[in-house]
Amino acid sequence: MTQLELARKGIASLEMKLVADAEGVTPEFVQQGIAQGNIVIPANRNHKLSRYYGIGKGLRVKVNANIGTSSDYGDVNNELEKLRVAIEYKADTVMDLSTGGDLSAIRRAILDESTIPLGTVPIYQAGIETIERRGAILNMTPDDLFRVIEEHAADGVDFVTVHCGVTRVSIERLKRQGRVTDIVSRGGALLLGWILHNDQENPLYEQYDRLLEIARKFDVTLSLGDGLRPGSLADATDRAQVEELLILGELVERAWDAGVQVMVEGPGHVPLDQIAANVQLQKSLCKGAPFYVLGPLVTDIAAGYDHISGAIGGAIAALAGADFLCYVTPSEHLGLPDLDDVKEGVIASRIAGHAADIARGVKGAWEWDRTMSEARKNLDWEEQVRLCLDPQKARHVHGQRASSGKACSMCGELCALQLVTDFLGAKPEKC
Amino acid sequence: MTQLELARKGIASLEMKLVADAEGVTPEFVQQGIAQGNIVIPANRNHKLSRYYGIGKGLRVKVNANIGTSSDYGDVNNELEKLRVAIEYKADTVMDLSTGGDLSAIRRAILDESTIPLGTVPIYQAGIETIERRGAILNMTPDDLFRVIEEHAADGVDFVTVHCGVTRVSIERLKRQGRVTDIVSRGGALLLGWILHNDQENPLYEQYDRLLEIARKFDVTLSLGDGLRPGSLADATDRAQVEELLILGELVERAWDAGVQVMVEGPGHVPLDQIAANVQLQKSLCKGAPFYVLGPLVTDIAAGYDHISGAIGGAIAALAGADFLCYVTPSEHLGLPDLDDVKEGVIASRIAGHAADIARGVKGAWEWDRTMSEARKNLDWEEQVRLCLDPQKARHVHGQRASSGKACSMCGELCALQLVTDFLGAKPEKC
Repeated sequence: MTQLELARKGIASLEMKLVADAEGVTPEFVQQGIAQGNIVIPANRNHKLSRYYGIGKGLRVKVNANIGTSSDYGDVNNELEKLRVAIEYKADTVMDLSTGGDLSAIRRAILDESTIPLGTVPIYQAGIETIERRGAILNMTPDDLFRVIEEHAADGVDFVTVHCGVTRVSIERLKRQGRVTDIVSRGGALLLGWILHNDQENPLYEQYDRLLEIARKFDVTLSLGDGLRPGSLADATDRAQVEELLILGELVERAWDAGVQVMVEGPGHVPLDQIAANVQLQKSLCKGAPFYVLGPLVTDIAAGYDHISGAIGGAIAALAGADFLCYVTPSEHLGLPDLDDVKEGVIASRIAGHAADIARGVKGAWEWDRTMSEARKNLDWEEQVRLCLDPQKARHVHGQRASSGKACSMCGELCALQLVTDFLGAKPEKC
Repeated sequence: MTQLELARKGIASLEMKLVADAEGVTPEFVQQGIAQGNIVIPANRNHKLSRYYGIGKGLRVKVNANIGTSSDYGDVNNELEKLRVAIEYKADTVMDLSTGGDLSAIRRAILDESTIPLGTVPIYQAGIETIERRGAILNMTPDDLFRVIEEHAADGVDFVTVHCGVTRVSIERLKRQGRVTDIVSRGGALLLGWILHNDQENPLYEQYDRLLEIARKFDVTLSLGDGLRPGSLADATDRAQVEELLILGELVERAWDAGVQVMVEGPGHVPLDQIAANVQLQKSLCKGAPFYVLGPLVTDIAAGYDHISGAIGGAIAALAGADFLCYVTPSEHLGLPDLDDVKEGVIASRIAGHAADIARGVKGAWEWDRTMSEARKNLDWEEQVRLCLDPQKARHVHGQRASSGKACSMCGELCALQLVTDFLGAKPEKC
């Protein structure tokens, strides 16, 4: 049985108990959240995880790091290094988005090493193999696609992005909408071409039951992809995007009916003042299914610093109810991320998620900050460094611009915390 | 006459016209905003500026960069380099917060070179000179303080932070409140000690008319400092902070009565879900005076990455109506910023401000993003680089991880934008 099927029977599985323990909630809370579809635990039966992660209502906001080769950079070793960096800086999940090199071998190498849940986008492999075998992506058969999905599931992939909402209907809406950046999802673009040129419906939509069957067999969590997500602020919250979300909402219910865990992916590029509405819309149309957002980016012009743009959007989205933040790295829109980008991306998203955790009252979040501030008040540098997201960097910066006194070199002798302690204490003469 | 006095007489000054021109609004809009106290133009009669900046309602959100020596690092040349970096990356204003070295000489050197408005916190110099001359800050006389303020004003400082709201009354509130981090404002800490140990009222409050007289003479904009701002999430929006804001609201009106331009400073460390309330409270209590926020930081634990924490808070604050963002650098809470920190801090705050500008409908903001997205759609890399906040970095990242094709190396041959263009165009066989 899947976690969803167990939860519905009132059974709190070992996975649910471990998630509850990590989150400081009761196993019943997790079990009921899963039963209602508000929580998922991506954990393929065939993947050995060092711990389990719950994603959804009432739990800590989770962060995903995308890694993977491209046609220009196909070395698996680089990607394994990125995996290590992502885990070191505490990403909760990783997605292998490889599109270059031996895709099956790369995925298996990453799966072997990943102690945290792994997601993939099987259509990339299906598309690329079709080019190799049949000359063009447009020649892909539904069987080509489902064969790859089954391979990923059997290998142990914990969640898969499937762009089931790119359909004849939503493509019509897209055409009538008119957009600045049309489609920026690779899966969405492939399916658009396939549907239009073969004059057939999206196999992921038409044969959705076949997809559910595979997912159920391995307890793969479906992540319903947003192939029509806006790729620019100008395209945000438009009719094409919302049409796709309507379709995804219906597919969420069909997944639940089949006992399959499911979450929904969201934008993308969204103006600051439309983010909360986007989250509320997803929660309403998808009946509370966990929401997995990419950023969102709050401006199109921050290439080189899109991790900051994404952290702003992610914090607001998570405050509004988004459950799962896909990081964006500084190299987004410019090139394949390197190790530093992975680190910067994970940390930026963790700041966003943690800020929302505090506001959402997630257990332990507030206490972490309070402990840090007490250490700050006491000018206890060892404790401050220990509590940082990146202790190594904090220690380096503090040490590099050393101060002659107990306070840091920002304020030196004029440290407010030190002054107040002296004023209110026994040493006003020092001031 | 000050800009405020001119505006009240219905006169649109040259400064107002230039601000209107830069913002794409009418001179009347600026004039009326200034007359109502919703807009300030910090421009000391004695400071030659290359352009003028309006701060307030209906205008682009502005960004300030703090520079300045500390007791550990007193070299003016480093600070002049930081000034150049801040201007290069388009900070709108700079504050010289120096507390080490020859403070008058440093300020004058920065003023000479700064083509953008400069702010200072005169009490730092007054306090440090008092230590040198009278042995302890507690021995500072009101005349010591006002002499320094007058020196700054006569030198051409465009706006000064004055912590007029740290009074006997607000200190009592602070004591009864109880806090994790008491006071983190250097000016606030100095005044607390001075008031308590001399058993006298804050001279900046008691002799506020004297302050107004100096400000009016040189048209220095007062920036009413928040000496009791929260230095940790646990202290946010507490009674001490709000008591000080009540006092500042009254002082705003007295400044207006005296023909003096005035803005109000705000926190600090604020949980994500309290930021909008903080802005609304300031706008209401201070009758629409421009709001100048420091960050705000949305978590206490991001040392090393506080520019990201500050960008999240700044974007939300600006969306809610804050007008002026003081940057926070990656070295905040750890040490004096270096050149890279200044750059990172300015860019992070500009992303926050720009994201809010788009949502606030500031002229030109939306168009910038749209032009960028059109260039992105066309895979026009020169144009994309040109439109970035940091063209040099964008070009470097793009070039360093070069792609063999027209798309970047992130997606390589599987670029969605390229695929869609091919699918919808004449080249489906390529896909």
